[in-house]
Amino acid sequence: MVGNSFGQAFRITTAGESHGPGNVVIIDGVPPGIPISVEDLLVDLNRRKPGQSKIVTQRKEADHPEILSGVFEGITTGTSLAILIRNEDQRSKDYGDIKDKYRPGHADYTYDAKYGFRDYRGGGRSSARETNVRVAAGVVAKKILATAFSGRIVGYVTQVGHLKAEIADPTLITADQVEQFSDGSLNPVRCPDHDLARQMIEFIDQVRKEGDSIGGVAEIVAINVPAGLGEPVFDKLKADIAKALFSIPAVLGVEYGSGFGCATMRGSQNNDHFIAEAGEDAPIITTDTNRHGGSLGGISTGQPLVFRAAVKPTSSLLIEQPTVTKQGEPTTIRTKGRHDPCLLPRFVPIAEAMIAITLADHWLRWRAQCEAAPNRTHND
Amino acid sequence: MVGNSFGQAFRITTAGESHGPGNVVIIDGVPPGIPISVEDLLVDLNRRKPGQSKIVTQRKEADHPEILSGVFEGITTGTSLAILIRNEDQRSKDYGDIKDKYRPGHADYTYDAKYGFRDYRGGGRSSARETNVRVAAGVVAKKILATAFSGRIVGYVTQVGHLKAEIADPTLITADQVEQFSDGSLNPVRCPDHDLARQMIEFIDQVRKEGDSIGGVAEIVAINVPAGLGEPVFDKLKADIAKALFSIPAVLGVEYGSGFGCATMRGSQNNDHFIAEAGEDAPIITTDTNRHGGSLGGISTGQPLVFRAAVKPTSSLLIEQPTVTKQGEPTTIRTKGRHDPCLLPRFVPIAEAMIAITLADHWLRWRAQCEAAPNRTHND
Amino acid sequence: MVGNSFGQAFRITTAGESHGPGNVVIIDGVPPGIPISVEDLLVDLNRRKPGQSKIVTQRKEADHPEILSGVFEGITTGTSLAILIRNEDQRSKDYGDIKDKYRPGHADYTYDAKYGFRDYRGGGRSSARETNVRVAAGVVAKKILATAFSGRIVGYVTQVGHLKAEIADPTLITADQVEQFSDGSLNPVRCPDHDLARQMIEFIDQVRKEGDSIGGVAEIVAINVPAGLGEPVFDKLKADIAKALFSIPAVLGVEYGSGFGCATMRGSQNNDHFIAEAGEDAPIITTDTNRHGGSLGGISTGQPLVFRAAVKPTSSLLIEQPTVTKQGEPTTIRTKGRHDPCLLPRFVPIAEAMIAITLADHWLRWRAQCEAAPNRTHND
Amino acid sequence: MVGNSFGQAFRITTAGESHGPGNVVIIDGVPPGIPISVEDLLVDLNRRKPGQSKIVTQRKEADHPEILSGVFEGITTGTSLAILIRNEDQRSKDYGDIKDKYRPGHADYTYDAKYGFRDYRGGGRSSARETNVRVAAGVVAKKILATAFSGRIVGYVTQVGHLKAEIADPTLITADQVEQFSDGSLNPVRCPDHDLARQMIEFIDQVRKEGDSIGGVAEIVAINVPAGLGEPVFDKLKADIAKALFSIPAVLGVEYGSGFGCATMRGSQNNDHFIAEAGEDAPIITTDTNRHGGSLGGISTGQPLVFRAAVKPTSSLLIEQPTVTKQGEPTTIRTKGRHDPCLLPRFVPIAEAMIAITLADHWLRWRAQCEAAPNRTHND
Repeated sequence: MVGNSFGQAFRITTAGESHGPGNVVIIDGVPPGIPISVEDLLVDLNRRKPGQSKIVTQRKEADHPEILSGVFEGITTGTSLAILIRNEDQRSKDYGDIKDKYRPGHADYTYDAKYGFRDYRGGGRSSARETNVRVAAGVVAKKILATAFSGRIVGYVTQVGHLKAEIADPTLITADQVEQFSDGSLNPVRCPDHDLARQMIEFIDQVRKEGDSIGGVAEIVAINVPAGLGEPVFDKLKADIAKALFSIPAVLGVEYGSGFGCATMRGSQNNDHFIAEAGEDAPIITTDTNRHGGSLGGISTGQPLVFRAAVKPTSSLLIEQPTVTKQGEPTTIRTKGRHDPCLLPRFVPIAEAMIAITLADHWLRWRAQCEAAPNRTHND
Repeated sequence: MVGNSFGQAFRITTAGESHGPGNVVIIDGVPPGIPISVEDLLVDLNRRKPGQSKIVTQRKEADHPEILSGVFEGITTGTSLAILIRNEDQRSKDYGDIKDKYRPGHADYTYDAKYGFRDYRGGGRSSARETNVRVAAGVVAKKILATAFSGRIVGYVTQVGHLKAEIADPTLITADQVEQFSDGSLNPVRCPDHDLARQMIEFIDQVRKEGDSIGGVAEIVAINVPAGLGEPVFDKLKADIAKALFSIPAVLGVEYGSGFGCATMRGSQNNDHFIAEAGEDAPIITTDTNRHGGSLGGISTGQPLVFRAAVKPTSSLLIEQPTVTKQGEPTTIRTKGRHDPCLLPRFVPIAEAMIAITLADHWLRWRAQCEAAPNRTHND
Repeated sequence: MVGNSFGQAFRITTAGESHGPGNVVIIDGVPPGIPISVEDLLVDLNRRKPGQSKIVTQRKEADHPEILSGVFEGITTGTSLAILIRNEDQRSKDYGDIKDKYRPGHADYTYDAKYGFRDYRGGGRSSARETNVRVAAGVVAKKILATAFSGRIVGYVTQVGHLKAEIADPTLITADQVEQFSDGSLNPVRCPDHDLARQMIEFIDQVRKEGDSIGGVAEIVAINVPAGLGEPVFDKLKADIAKALFSIPAVLGVEYGSGFGCATMRGSQNNDHFIAEAGEDAPIITTDTNRHGGSLGGISTGQPLVFRAAVKPTSSLLIEQPTVTKQGEPTTIRTKGRHDPCLLPRFVPIAEAMIAITLADHWLRWRAQCEAAPNRTHND
Repeated sequence: MVGNSFGQAFRITTAGESHGPGNVVIIDGVPPGIPISVEDLLVDLNRRKPGQSKIVTQRKEADHPEILSGVFEGITTGTSLAILIRNEDQRSKDYGDIKDKYRPGHADYTYDAKYGFRDYRGGGRSSARETNVRVAAGVVAKKILATAFSGRIVGYVTQVGHLKAEIADPTLITADQVEQFSDGSLNPVRCPDHDLARQMIEFIDQVRKEGDSIGGVAEIVAINVPAGLGEPVFDKLKADIAKALFSIPAVLGVEYGSGFGCATMRGSQNNDHFIAEAGEDAPIITTDTNRHGGSLGGISTGQPLVFRAAVKPTSSLLIEQPTVTKQGEPTTIRTKGRHDPCLLPRFVPIAEAMIAITLADHWLRWRAQCEAAPNRTHND
């Protein structure tokens, strides 16, 4: 029942399957007056697109968006904005193999259990294909953040298998550093530590050749977010961002700030201390360190938001795996198709989009309530 | 704006502050016909209550609930159920110290930034005091799960600082094992490894004496959850449970199944394999292992749901900490009051409650949609 | 499932029954910084209260509200605001009569059909008793409207049975005119045409003596509402106000502007014409007439909002009425209790409250989206 | 903010404008296993389509739907179902006239006031063009009602200007009687009183020739709806249906059962009496009359639901009307385009769709909660 919407004041609703005509998103709550073009959407869609490098799936999808509504003469109108991305690479093939066999790690069995049957041509609604329209919606959200408070979101890969980058200061990582090497060539793995990135690429390629896959971790940083976003109790900013990230296929863990590392820390170690920096009119309150990852009491502090997500190794393997048929008979399965040997490189723009959407939603929610307060203005 | 509700088909809405008259929850969507009494509520409220052992805060709160509506002659009516828990321990004291100083790790600053001012007598709405009505609502949710599918939820502490329990099989942990030692005495730390539990207690007591605090990890397991709960895309079961857990104060990380450990795993290692077990009428599909933590494609598989949450060390310390005043002047602060040296023991019933509420919600959501399918019945 | 909340950005959630401990409302989304006191709440609660005059029910209820949260030192904090009103007049009596008999016009049968059983001591959740907390929430909403744009809401009775007032200009009706006669004495029927009011009072009293009841119509006007409130398509302002009014017990019809009268009108008669009035900086666009009742395309035009609701005669009668028992056996019923011979006088403050709540919600929703537009400010 | 969704358990979200690429609806919460085809959708789309007779607008639109997702091999999958209807008749023309002039009765001014600017090529999002996807969604909803409880919805026109039909028993009206005359020819005005229908047609044609338009009333009846649908307090069935109808452009009034007529009635006249009819296992409780229009306490009684809506005369006129420009300068306007001289004939399928959607939503909501009650089953 009704699980295809996300957000309250800025809300996206999606539909579409991997082997249907296409995917569509309706974005409700977009402020009027923001310039949006197909070209804008393509920037991030191309970062998520299959076939962008040798270490991602070679499935062919143009992922070309059509804006169906909500934009007039290149500017958002304030009414609901719909974007359609048609599927192209729907090869005619024999689905017999996956029609009756439950692929390990996939949602084949759970969809059957839930709905009584399923679109057996692929992952259907559970396929990560649906994330393309999320990325498109994320571009709209990023525009709102940029307009409202010069907000920026930078995501990158920090770990692939045993290869783990040490990022001294997440706020110094630039989009350029993530997307390309210093010689301007594509950095297909999106790890800002370029030496490690080259090792990751080699490692992923090796895993791919073995017909296997490998997990990893991505970190996403949101910069310039003002103090005040997030709601008390259930809709804490950290809670909504966690939900946003866990809504992405293959995410098994989310943490922010000191994260799971806090388990071994004492309060005297983990607490950041408030300090005052000189401001134009009044001192600006901030903290000396950012172990709190930009959120206290579920509300943004003005420090960068720093979240990490653990992404499991792709479940589809060229290696033969044991499983059962729908009828419960033992069998084996090998995924012949093209798949990502490591999900992390393409995960980055999806995670960025979901965080951007969450922040746009909370920004509008904050404005609704606190801008309506007597004698109150924000200095954005 | 509107952050005080959780759930769609089973929805809780709360209000209340640490130093106000009390906390209240309205539960909407309760099925009619379920027996609920104040005594039922007290079972879990007493597990969350301050002062239950020497290793938790000594604040005195009776936490006695009053059922205001929705129950007639001991049975739920199906209309909205409200529970009120009055605050008692509102010591008259000089708040001068925390009125103007920002406590490190607390929401004092962010509430000021968001709302322009705050109830300076304590954490106000950001205080974990509000979780008492969540626990009360969790009891109602647990009743629904028990009635619907003999669902049970067992939470326990697995880590306090460097002391980390190895739980071979989470599904074997019993509530008794968590709550008491084999001699029947209270297990105040709620770690089912009793030898380790005794070390944890000693360690927490030592940390307390040092005026400091310590973090940890809790694991929560839901058993007998049928395959089929959870919605595609945004309202994946894992996403809603993650939000539920991150909505609890002090949670910095959440993972399920192989969690962050998946980053170093290959697909061939991480995938569980489907197997068939003999069933009464037809084979029952399940998996040989449970690295997927009971959820595939965001939908429950019938295997136990296994989630872990990292909880930071309490921010309030007897140790003096540097901070600034509201005006930005450097100062120091020492929390004189009573606080938990380790949040984990009292965290367990809160986390159980939030998972129970999420599952009750998804159970009702599933029934709404899939029970309405032609020619479809569930065998519960 | 989950029918006890109203509103999106300003949301009220209620619980409580006629014969339970009391009613409670949680208001979510209240802007911070608004002064609210128990005395403020009492103004409208006293207008809704039983026993205020001889032509309303003589049930005794103090209807004294307790603010449980969300207000600190007399000012709203921005966090969820809860108000509790305890029931007092729960006479111990023999419910045998209504326990098994279905009262005509009441929800006894439908509650049994829906939930399988019901609180047989009275209307339970279907009793209009629950509207007391709506009125309390309405006071908070009215404060928001007054603060934001000097918004005012004036409701009054236009018809009781065959007695129908002709209101030449709804915007000229004052609250004083509604509440009292020119000599300062109470106008218990709340009709601003004082001659007709006196006839209505006499008529209602006569109907009461006959053991019967009488229907009527109320008109509610909202003044100073700026152009721009209301959302396209489903959440049109007219649609949300209509829902708000229809959510009140006994309402059988709602219309605005020319209402049902439009059926016999031509476009050339019904259309209002846009005109320009001199403004400070720029001309102010308005209309020459207000047959559109303040709403075009579902969005407020700046003209007064003018809505009317038809309220059925009270179903409880002293006259004996035929009915059946729960088991289907024919019987008769006479409501011995105290009831309103005409619902209209007490309906007025409830309808005002629901419209105020709807407008506060739409005001906040508008601010969320349109205040976030680049280069846009509102001049309030 | 976020006004483009309707429903909770069965929810539709729409996007699209009159002069954009097309309209799209995402339907969330569709039960799996229901057969749906493009042909099914066309039945009602053709009843709403422009150009179907001489008394409706002659705009040319094929209104051909494409199902984008949620249907596999002709059967709903349970995942979100999207339908796209492209616009075709987007004549290239000079919009100069309406670009700067505010059309009386239209949303031109209010959209400008709300958003700061608008798509000036037509009504944009405020155009009734968006209702085509509502009608498509209504077909899906009708299928659910038919499957669940043989539910049927029949709408018809009861009044056009002064021509008013007296419908003795709304439950006897058949769809055939509405759609065609006894000779099988099209009944373009959809009034089941065929003599009056012919007068209406003539009258509308005359009004059209005069360049004017005329209002009217439609009645919509839902049959076989079981007792129990609707939620206490805010989401009363009557309230949600009223919102559904008021969300349709041009609706100025809604009533059900005795409606505004109740104002002159006494309780002893208006109350329906409960009676028992012989049932298979137990007596069936019903009422002797249906002045309550199928709803008591906001919950369906099992009697037919009978709602009426007043629809204003089309605002676009060939007659010249005074107005102002955006800048406030007096001018006149004549709508040269093709318009409906009377909205009622095409209103009927839209109103049916909105009531079907509301009922499907409440049906699923009821099942969620009450099916989950212990020891409870429904006999559908």
